[in-house]
Amino acid sequence: MTTDIESIASSFLSELSRWEHFREVRDLLDWDMRTGSPRKAASLRSETVGVISDEMFRLKTSPRFGEYLLRLQDPGVASSLSKDVRRIVALEAREYERNRKIPQERYQKFAVLVAKAGAIWEEAKETSNFALYRPYLEQVVAMKREFVDYFGYREHPYDALLDEYEPGMTVAKLDPVFAYLRDETVKLLQSIVNSGCTLPGDLLVGDFDKASQRELSVQLLEQMGYDFEAGRLDESIHPFQTTINRFDARVTTNFRAHHIDFALFSTLHEGGHALYEQGINPEFAGTPLSAGASLGLHESQSRFWENMIGRSMEFWQAYYGRVQTLFPQFRDVPVSEFHKAVNEVKPSLIRIEADELTYNLHIMVRYEIEKSLVSGDIKVSDLPEIWREKMKDYLGIVPGDDATGVLQDVHWSDGSIGYFPTYTLGNVYSAQFRHQLQKEMPDYLNEIKRGNLLGIREWLKEKIHRFGNSEDPVDILTRVTGEELNAKYLVDYLNEKFRELYNL
Amino acid sequence: MTTDIESIASSFLSELSRWEHFREVRDLLDWDMRTGSPRKAASLRSETVGVISDEMFRLKTSPRFGEYLLRLQDPGVASSLSKDVRRIVALEAREYERNRKIPQERYQKFAVLVAKAGAIWEEAKETSNFALYRPYLEQVVAMKREFVDYFGYREHPYDALLDEYEPGMTVAKLDPVFAYLRDETVKLLQSIVNSGCTLPGDLLVGDFDKASQRELSVQLLEQMGYDFEAGRLDESIHPFQTTINRFDARVTTNFRAHHIDFALFSTLHEGGHALYEQGINPEFAGTPLSAGASLGLHESQSRFWENMIGRSMEFWQAYYGRVQTLFPQFRDVPVSEFHKAVNEVKPSLIRIEADELTYNLHIMVRYEIEKSLVSGDIKVSDLPEIWREKMKDYLGIVPGDDATGVLQDVHWSDGSIGYFPTYTLGNVYSAQFRHQLQKEMPDYLNEIKRGNLLGIREWLKEKIHRFGNSEDPVDILTRVTGEELNAKYLVDYLNEKFRELYNL
Repeated sequence: MTTDIESIASSFLSELSRWEHFREVRDLLDWDMRTGSPRKAASLRSETVGVISDEMFRLKTSPRFGEYLLRLQDPGVASSLSKDVRRIVALEAREYERNRKIPQERYQKFAVLVAKAGAIWEEAKETSNFALYRPYLEQVVAMKREFVDYFGYREHPYDALLDEYEPGMTVAKLDPVFAYLRDETVKLLQSIVNSGCTLPGDLLVGDFDKASQRELSVQLLEQMGYDFEAGRLDESIHPFQTTINRFDARVTTNFRAHHIDFALFSTLHEGGHALYEQGINPEFAGTPLSAGASLGLHESQSRFWENMIGRSMEFWQAYYGRVQTLFPQFRDVPVSEFHKAVNEVKPSLIRIEADELTYNLHIMVRYEIEKSLVSGDIKVSDLPEIWREKMKDYLGIVPGDDATGVLQDVHWSDGSIGYFPTYTLGNVYSAQFRHQLQKEMPDYLNEIKRGNLLGIREWLKEKIHRFGNSEDPVDILTRVTGEELNAKYLVDYLNEKFRELYNL
Repeated sequence: MTTDIESIASSFLSELSRWEHFREVRDLLDWDMRTGSPRKAASLRSETVGVISDEMFRLKTSPRFGEYLLRLQDPGVASSLSKDVRRIVALEAREYERNRKIPQERYQKFAVLVAKAGAIWEEAKETSNFALYRPYLEQVVAMKREFVDYFGYREHPYDALLDEYEPGMTVAKLDPVFAYLRDETVKLLQSIVNSGCTLPGDLLVGDFDKASQRELSVQLLEQMGYDFEAGRLDESIHPFQTTINRFDARVTTNFRAHHIDFALFSTLHEGGHALYEQGINPEFAGTPLSAGASLGLHESQSRFWENMIGRSMEFWQAYYGRVQTLFPQFRDVPVSEFHKAVNEVKPSLIRIEADELTYNLHIMVRYEIEKSLVSGDIKVSDLPEIWREKMKDYLGIVPGDDATGVLQDVHWSDGSIGYFPTYTLGNVYSAQFRHQLQKEMPDYLNEIKRGNLLGIREWLKEKIHRFGNSEDPVDILTRVTGEELNAKYLVDYLNEKFRELYNL
């Protein structure tokens, strides 16, 4: 490597590290706003967020940064760079190109639009007034379709959007996988509903001291191997995980006085995200490799801990005693009943409250709608009706108003079209990983029962976490499981689990 | 005002507002580190703080910023600026000139030195090893003396350092005021000690539930008129107040399981600082006018609430019932006893644990030492001995080691020489303000007894807070009280209060 290239690579990396410091700041500002910064501070605060975001944008779109990328992508040069630096260059170049394809004037117009659309969405949701929201959503969809043309695509226009959240994912890959999962899930759900059998979900309703709930969350995070010296647990309205810096992977949850399950499973979910972040190779710090490989991969880790571990019988055989100690009302409830309660299946209107089985059907509704909106096959004005039809077809229930129907999610108002599928992808991946874990560590359920989760955590770290964003998601999946995307394992897992629980 | 000047003034102000956004970020990073950011995150975090601090430094030392100042200070121009903008220009020009006087190479050397000195000080304090710290403190003092020469001064070299913390303050002004206060305090303290009379301070030792302590702190802040929608209360090892933005004046305290008074009076103290910040004219936001006028003025507000209000009989007549409700062990303790307990006078070695009366003597020790160090009349190697002598002369006690003597404070290790006097200045100012309050609102003690603190808070806001940093401290003092610095009111107040409490 010539000195010239060495010095360019080093300037390029130090520019990225500078960007990372601003990212730390932006994410701390955000964490602070969501965990209790005072109401009146919000307006000045959002200006501060704007200053930092501008700085980040400027760094990565500067002619100097473009020049670095150009020089480092030169085929004669690339071979002299380390594998990691080549990957960093490739990731940054992809983002740089993507950003450059949209004229700046259109970007700005879009930013203004989504700021407005977000506020309107809130009002529309509150008053269940789709007509109010419709013109804004129409503009968002129109601009996203315009962006798709700028980005370009090979087969389906939706691919250009999917790629932003799940690099390499396409409609051609998703369609058969999702259709199979949807049909099998609908079948299983119908069997459950027709069986007349119910699980005792109402056991989870009562009065639950928040300090004790917090104690339980802390204990379970510790059991998972979450490192409290490199993170912290706080409360926020909507639980989330955020990585302030490489050694600061924070988790939030929400303690609900009358529902013990909400904080519990939110903690396991966000804790799963955090384990991914805490497991990344520390040498990647300050580079784009220090991140999850995709939203779907990230979600596979949170869902794995929330559902496959956290709703298993073995998990509660190990930890139910803690629940009984902290909440004496469970003293006479056997563990088998508690396990049934946390696995109750019940078609419901709201995605974020859905159970493990029906959750994916909520995603199918959104995936199919997004695809057709982007291709132009359906119009925004048709959405409420299409929503009701799909809910009826897949879940067998129909929302009484749009607030609990098409207006329920924030995503579209901020332009996040192509994001929803990553939730179900996470579930599909997690079942594929689970299958592989079972092969490589046949005793893993017994380990859980013995209250030893650390072996599983090590396996995930060794196979997935430590690689961070140094490989594409599909490469991680095939390296770990030997297969590409395959919903069979999720379908098998769901059938086995719920047929047993519901005596089918 | 010509368009040219208008546009320069507006660019200048927007540069300052940008600086303020970075300041918000820096102070949030700091708040976060002191209220629970994880241990392992510290190293990467300090790099982030460095990036932001550099950005702030660069903004205010850029040639462009200097050019703005030059243009706006032009006598032909200044008259066309508003009074507030003229003040902003004057404040910034003072800081700009001050910064420019030190060659950048010396600044950098100093920054490296104090980083090192801080770490060494910690170790030296822990092992009570002054010899370890001495060479570093010698270098700090030498460099501060060098800076004094760069800054220049009229009468006493120490004036050049004082001015940074208390604009306009000089040794010539302080010496007589402090000497009088010192002599009168020593006399009063001797009478107390000789009287053989003691107050029941041990009433405050016991077991105090932290959640109840928190509840009490919140209630008292609310009573003071602290706006929780523009601030929040957290816990940290050392209590502090920090203003994240104009509508986010945060307070921290520390709940000690076995001492009820620590969190209580820390909350009142930091709450007093916060009321100052919350009371500043909101139109000053984003400019250097949105700050306290000096450290001494700021301290006058915290001390006023902590001591003059918070340790008064009337305050406890209003609020002692809350203490008794939250802590049943006080059920049979009369309010008069509790009032005595929180006013116990007891010469002690550690400044931050000192009572209201002896606190100023701790400051006198430091003020006299700093002055002589800067003038070169004493040497660093003499400090432990001088410290012991002065403690004996003023407080009648002598530390058994340097950890509880000359090594106890962090200030000198970070180069803060000239800072200590502002603590006692705060006490002097607060007594002057109290005297004036008594004249203008003769019923104020009855108002406190009735549990109405808001009238007092309004008076302070009207007279002091709302002006922020738009006037020099001496101008605020003379505008409000009609007098310059005068320790008579503090001496009278202390004599009256403690002679009654101790039956002298």
